[in-house]
This record gives sequence, structure tokens and C-alpha cells, in this order.
Amino acid sequence: MVQYQAVDRTLAALADPTRRGVLERLGRQGSASVSELAEPAGMSLTGMKKHLRVLEEAGLVSTEKVGRTRRCSLGPKRLEDVQAWMDSYRLMLEERFDRLEELLGRTEGDSP
Amino acid sequence: MVQYQAVDRTLAALADPTRRGVLERLGRQGSASVSELAEPAGMSLTGMKKHLRVLEEAGLVSTEKVGRTRRCSLGPKRLEDVQAWMDSYRLMLEERFDRLEELLGRTEGDSP
Repeated sequence: MVQYQAVDRTLAALADPTRRGVLERLGRQGSASVSELAEPAGMSLTGMKKHLRVLEEAGLVSTEKVGRTRRCSLGPKRLEDVQAWMDSYRLMLEERFDRLEELLGRTEGDSP
Repeated sequence: MVQYQAVDRTLAALADPTRRGVLERLGRQGSASVSELAEPAGMSLTGMKKHLRVLEEAGLVSTEKVGRTRRCSLGPKRLEDVQAWMDSYRLMLEERFDRLEELLGRTEGDSP
């Protein structure tokens, strides 16, 4: 259940182009201040702070107060839980298609 | 932009354990009625219908009226867009780590 909630939070955090953009930017350049993230996104500081809070709660971003500014960088979370669910879902679908193919092959083999 | 919105919808649709459970169930058994999906999830028909609408709008589930019941099955969407974003994000992180390692190696090589 706890695991489920964590995946939920990660997926919900990713379900927004601004937030995915922040992750991509931090991934490329390492760290940025809130205003450095807000400006290219055409967003107010308050708006960006809300997005950062969602990302921080999901563990995808870490923030640290340095002097008078807040530096943001990628958090400890690396999307492993989302990838794990995607992998198990795809595997399940593949197994099902394999079984269907096998069944189809058997049925075709049965006909004269 | 259109592509972005589609990924948003897919991710938001996946950000719920009931909805992921529906996908897993339909993946395993092919198709199910709304009540067959609602019962094991301990959910009302109305509640399940809301979840199904979100999944249907994201293209993850298709529903079809058969007589007096509605049959649900997996939709045309196969999470390719989410996987594509995850892959490009991971690649970007890997490239960054490679650059950092290279930089570190060069700096260490410079020292006597």
C-alpha cells in the first residue's frame, strides 16, 4: 500500500509539462534557483514554487536554502518505481499475447 | 504541445492504484464488464465508471456496449509515450553523469 502511494505521487508529479521540464533542466545543468526555473517557463515565482513542492514531495527534486536563494537539484528518486510498474505491466501483456498465439497455433494445428 | 497533453493524460490516468489495477486485470483476462471490475476493487459502479472514463479518455481502455452491459478491454494506447519520455530522461541523466565522470577523470589526471 505504501509502495502504491509512492508510485501514485511520482506519476502525478510527472503528469505536467512544466514539472517534467524542471526535471529535464535540473538533469542537464545540475542545479538552479527558483527564479532561474520560473523565467524560461514563463511562470511566476509563486507558480513555480507550487510545482517544486509537488516534485519535492515526490522525492524528485531537493531544495536547499543557500544565503537568500533556494537552490534546486534532482532529488533521491530516480523513477525506478514507475519503471518497475511499466516493466511488469509490459511483461504481463507479452505473456498474454504469447498465450494467445500459442492457443491460436494449437487451434490451427487441430484443423485438417 | 499536443504530444505533451497526451503524455499528461496518460500519466495522470496511471497515477491511481485502482486504475492501474483495471489495466492489469484487463491485460490478464482480455475483457470484463463494469461490475466485474468494480466488485474486486470494492467499488460502486458509479465510482468505477468515473475511473473508466479517465482511462478511456487517455486511450488506455476501450468500452463497448454489448446488449445491456458494457464490456471493457485495453485501448489502443500502450504507454509508448510515457516510456519514450522515461527513456529520453534517463539517457539525458546518463550523458550528464558521463560528462561529470570525464571531467573528474581529467581533473584527477591533471594533479601530480
